[in-house]
Amino acid sequence: MRSAESASSTRRDLFGLLACARLTAFERRAADAGRATSYEDKVVLGRLAVGAFTQFERLRDRLVELGADPWEAMRPFQEAIGEFHEHSRPADTVEALTKVYVADSILADFYVAAAGEVDAETRAVVEESLADSGHAELLAERLRAAADADPRLASRLGLWARRLVGEALSQANTIAGDRATLAALVGEEGVEAMFGRVLDRHTARMRTINLRD
Amino acid sequence: MRSAESASSTRRDLFGLLACARLTAFERRAADAGRATSYEDKVVLGRLAVGAFTQFERLRDRLVELGADPWEAMRPFQEAIGEFHEHSRPADTVEALTKVYVADSILADFYVAAAGEVDAETRAVVEESLADSGHAELLAERLRAAADADPRLASRLGLWARRLVGEALSQANTIAGDRATLAALVGEEGVEAMFGRVLDRHTARMRTINLRD
Repeated sequence: MRSAESASSTRRDLFGLLACARLTAFERRAADAGRATSYEDKVVLGRLAVGAFTQFERLRDRLVELGADPWEAMRPFQEAIGEFHEHSRPADTVEALTKVYVADSILADFYVAAAGEVDAETRAVVEESLADSGHAELLAERLRAAADADPRLASRLGLWARRLVGEALSQANTIAGDRATLAALVGEEGVEAMFGRVLDRHTARMRTINLRD
Repeated sequence: MRSAESASSTRRDLFGLLACARLTAFERRAADAGRATSYEDKVVLGRLAVGAFTQFERLRDRLVELGADPWEAMRPFQEAIGEFHEHSRPADTVEALTKVYVADSILADFYVAAAGEVDAETRAVVEESLADSGHAELLAERLRAAADADPRLASRLGLWARRLVGEALSQANTIAGDRATLAALVGEEGVEAMFGRVLDRHTARMRTINLRD
């Protein structure tokens, strides 16, 4: 059993990580919206950016309630999350949408692996911050339709998704190495076994939307 | 008295202009948030970006209700609004915040000049899309504090604000020349007299926040 102090550090690190991920997702999605060439694409990406910002604000408010400085809680994760985005710059809107779908799904998978180890209140906050307001399903449909209509695009997006998952696991590994609080959430299973499961789920999702692997 | 058809074109042009202005403001503010170096600044600009996007969505929904294609309604204004932003790229966060304050205030002033000429329903939509949820006052306070603390900054921001109002009037002139529907909203007064009044109000605002002119 963890002590109260350690439970509080875990909460701060978990919320700090998610807050940093959400604020950065806002910036990146908004930049993708800015680069999109059609109004339709701008608006889809803009809405996803706004959703990420709203989730960031809720996490920041929870951190303040815990008595934490939100910026201090986010700072340890800034570099790894920034690297993930630097190494995965979408070339166009369909890659940007694939990135939202892949990255949000992986973040949710990581959380499923950790959910058993946190208290009910923490779980509620995290689940709210990962709720996608139905966009995952809409994105999956849109990507499946695009892949079915164009086999070369399906192949390009398959490679792109593979790169995204590789980057995500690499940065997650850095974070787990740096933050004992978060590594501990994986429990008995260990980080490597969890990564294997995250990868399996990713592969299954890619098959569902007909991306070539 | 205007015909029903002309009233409907006026509404479409007015909502299209504002929708285009709000979507573009979202993109620019989000990009400014991305460039900001502190979390605090990122979050202030991010919130302003999210507010602009939400107002854009409401205007788009009203255009759809009118039976208009929102993208077609926005397109005539894309170039002038894009030019405004291209010619007024903030160098840092305090210039970005000055730009939000100056541009939103001028947009509201233009509207005050036109409000008498539109029907009550149109007026309600426009007023909602210009409502600032109190941010104008917060921005004014922050800018005044910054100017009072640093006379050189006050002088730089004063010049910056002057450039912003010049660009805004120049693009407004282009729009009034292109769209008879919108020029007609100014009524008897004429475009030049209205510009004079907008400029007077701008100058008075700059004095209130102690920016050197």
